[in-house]
Amino acid sequence: MLFSHDEYQEYQSRIAKVKKSMEEKGIEVLLVTNPSNMNYLTGYDGWSFYVDQMVAVIIDEDEPLWIGRYQDANGAKATVWLDHNNIIPYPDEYVQSQTRHPMDFIADFLTQIGQAKRKIGVELESYYFTALAYERLKAKLPDATFKDGSLLVNYVRIIKSEMEIDYMKKAATIVEKAMQTAVNSIHVGARQCDAIASIYYDLITGTSEYGGDYPAIVPLMPTGENTSAPHLTWSDQPFKDNDMVIIEIAGCFKRYHAPLARTVSLGKPSEKVTDLSKVVVEGLNHALDAVKPGNTCEDIEAAWRKVISKHGIEKEARLGYSMGLSYPPDWGEHTASIRKGDKTILKPNMTFHLIPALWFENYGIEISESFRVTDQGVEVLTNYTRELIVKGDFDFEEPVIS
Amino acid sequence: MLFSHDEYQEYQSRIAKVKKSMEEKGIEVLLVTNPSNMNYLTGYDGWSFYVDQMVAVIIDEDEPLWIGRYQDANGAKATVWLDHNNIIPYPDEYVQSQTRHPMDFIADFLTQIGQAKRKIGVELESYYFTALAYERLKAKLPDATFKDGSLLVNYVRIIKSEMEIDYMKKAATIVEKAMQTAVNSIHVGARQCDAIASIYYDLITGTSEYGGDYPAIVPLMPTGENTSAPHLTWSDQPFKDNDMVIIEIAGCFKRYHAPLARTVSLGKPSEKVTDLSKVVVEGLNHALDAVKPGNTCEDIEAAWRKVISKHGIEKEARLGYSMGLSYPPDWGEHTASIRKGDKTILKPNMTFHLIPALWFENYGIEISESFRVTDQGVEVLTNYTRELIVKGDFDFEEPVIS
Repeated sequence: MLFSHDEYQEYQSRIAKVKKSMEEKGIEVLLVTNPSNMNYLTGYDGWSFYVDQMVAVIIDEDEPLWIGRYQDANGAKATVWLDHNNIIPYPDEYVQSQTRHPMDFIADFLTQIGQAKRKIGVELESYYFTALAYERLKAKLPDATFKDGSLLVNYVRIIKSEMEIDYMKKAATIVEKAMQTAVNSIHVGARQCDAIASIYYDLITGTSEYGGDYPAIVPLMPTGENTSAPHLTWSDQPFKDNDMVIIEIAGCFKRYHAPLARTVSLGKPSEKVTDLSKVVVEGLNHALDAVKPGNTCEDIEAAWRKVISKHGIEKEARLGYSMGLSYPPDWGEHTASIRKGDKTILKPNMTFHLIPALWFENYGIEISESFRVTDQGVEVLTNYTRELIVKGDFDFEEPVIS
Repeated sequence: MLFSHDEYQEYQSRIAKVKKSMEEKGIEVLLVTNPSNMNYLTGYDGWSFYVDQMVAVIIDEDEPLWIGRYQDANGAKATVWLDHNNIIPYPDEYVQSQTRHPMDFIADFLTQIGQAKRKIGVELESYYFTALAYERLKAKLPDATFKDGSLLVNYVRIIKSEMEIDYMKKAATIVEKAMQTAVNSIHVGARQCDAIASIYYDLITGTSEYGGDYPAIVPLMPTGENTSAPHLTWSDQPFKDNDMVIIEIAGCFKRYHAPLARTVSLGKPSEKVTDLSKVVVEGLNHALDAVKPGNTCEDIEAAWRKVISKHGIEKEARLGYSMGLSYPPDWGEHTASIRKGDKTILKPNMTFHLIPALWFENYGIEISESFRVTDQGVEVLTNYTRELIVKGDFDFEEPVIS
């Protein structure tokens, strides 16, 4: 794959930042197994994270190594900026075997290149670095000193470059279109799966200028009483009169996300739900007002809490999280969370999904925004009506989208 | 959620089989973190596996426990057959925190219910049980004896019930339709993302009788020279004259999969590619002929190898794998592989994806089938033309689909 000078420079700058952090943490070799971090450092992009693979950053080597399955080496050649001699394949007989483990090969390889006695950072809290992978690596590298390198790269990723912000804005344009399609597709009698199919169509086709990538989370669409349960997906049952429907989706462009959640009422919502949705929007607006460089994540939460506690409401869960580049199963970055106690200082080009959802025993409301911290304050990435969306043919004082 | 008597009986039978295997392995408490295994044992279905969660099977308790995030407890109530007292939520402050870990809560809970000194099986090779999760659990449960329970439930899952086979046949019907849409959508000038959007639409909308679920892997569609790299996804670039295009997709119904791969040539394929595709089909046919109860996985591979070695071809990777119920990132079950050395004895209602793909330096061919082992031999789950699919307007002796 060809990279522009700017892209190449950006990768160099990312590697430099990671090496600086490695030095501070006393890590000489960082084994990066989180696929988002692998992509961030090398450009590697393939659905191969279901087998062991990694990018190894060695403090005194110019370029990292990509280590993965033999059949994925061509995918690495097609997507990374690295010298192809730095692509190290392991044979297929190591894959999902009861007798061999890819980490045996990788430990042998690290030994061969003289890295067996070093301070090795591993991402202990990465989905695709299993407990067994760590056990095997430790057993085969008894002279190495292991350190936890979890989130080291994630914290470098927390401030986005202009290129990354551009990607996220493209993702935002995609999700605006998909949300409108969701609202149009959700109506009494339509099957849930058909609405999701239309949403997916828009998420992937993108715009006429650029296409969409697969989001790290599938469309979430709890319906009816299940709006109390944010992570349910969909069924093939039809929407019913007076159903509440939550839609949480993200546009994705080149693995960068812009998430957005809205709630639709199919029919006149109860007074309780209408009032609650107004509280959520009011709280969301106040939370956004608290976004500016120098404030902390917990300042945003405090602004939200001030509004909702006035209405006698408490929220158990965090309000949001840093996000951007990601692979399944999560578009969050696992660094800063918008919640009490998180003292992360906001800096320009940090990006968050602010989702101050409220869930009760048999219903819930989600109205969210993705935002960027600017030099002065906040830029909301998406432009979509920030309110409970009410559909149906009845007397209602609020604007109705149908 | 309401379960039929048959469904309830099926869950009971699964729990009984798992307990039998636990006894054989000397495991008293099995902490099941693989979301497919969690679903298999309880019905739990939600996109919440990006945070720590588990099903705990205690050898001397009737019902397992579901343990997960507070905001997912309503999703558990909506989907599992368990008594709701067996749904144990942990507070949100444990989620993606730099100071707390969900395993601290879970270890404390296991201690409270008297399980701290037992022989505890954990799935060391499960994507969503991280190395750190294991470290924290061991530190907080110093009196427990930990054993590797990886694949224990997976091996119970390897033989499907009639209900599961019915689900997979529904998934097969969905993937046949989506593959036809793929072939129709892939043409010179169309953008790759638009073809994928149409495929997704069909995978999710399913049929008029039942809808589709999200497959555990997104559509894979390496194109042109990238057909040498099986796990690339798509771009927004248009298909070009004479492009080769690989499509690997799965229909999914209630989390059960039927994968299918085909290769399309946009224009007259080279003689080399045509010949190779015939070898693949011949090898695939011979491999399928070797499927019957009593034969082993490596017998299937040997039948394939006999054909291709006659043509001077070698294949590095395994030919296929057991599959069925799954969540991202893989629809494979990680138990039996169709490869040399795998002596798994085939039994009725085992189900596999047989994908004897060949990848070279700058092209590749994939033609696959999903099959079930029957009492006598084999049943191919999907019905789709088993050949290289050639599209275009030119003289060609083979049947042309356009």
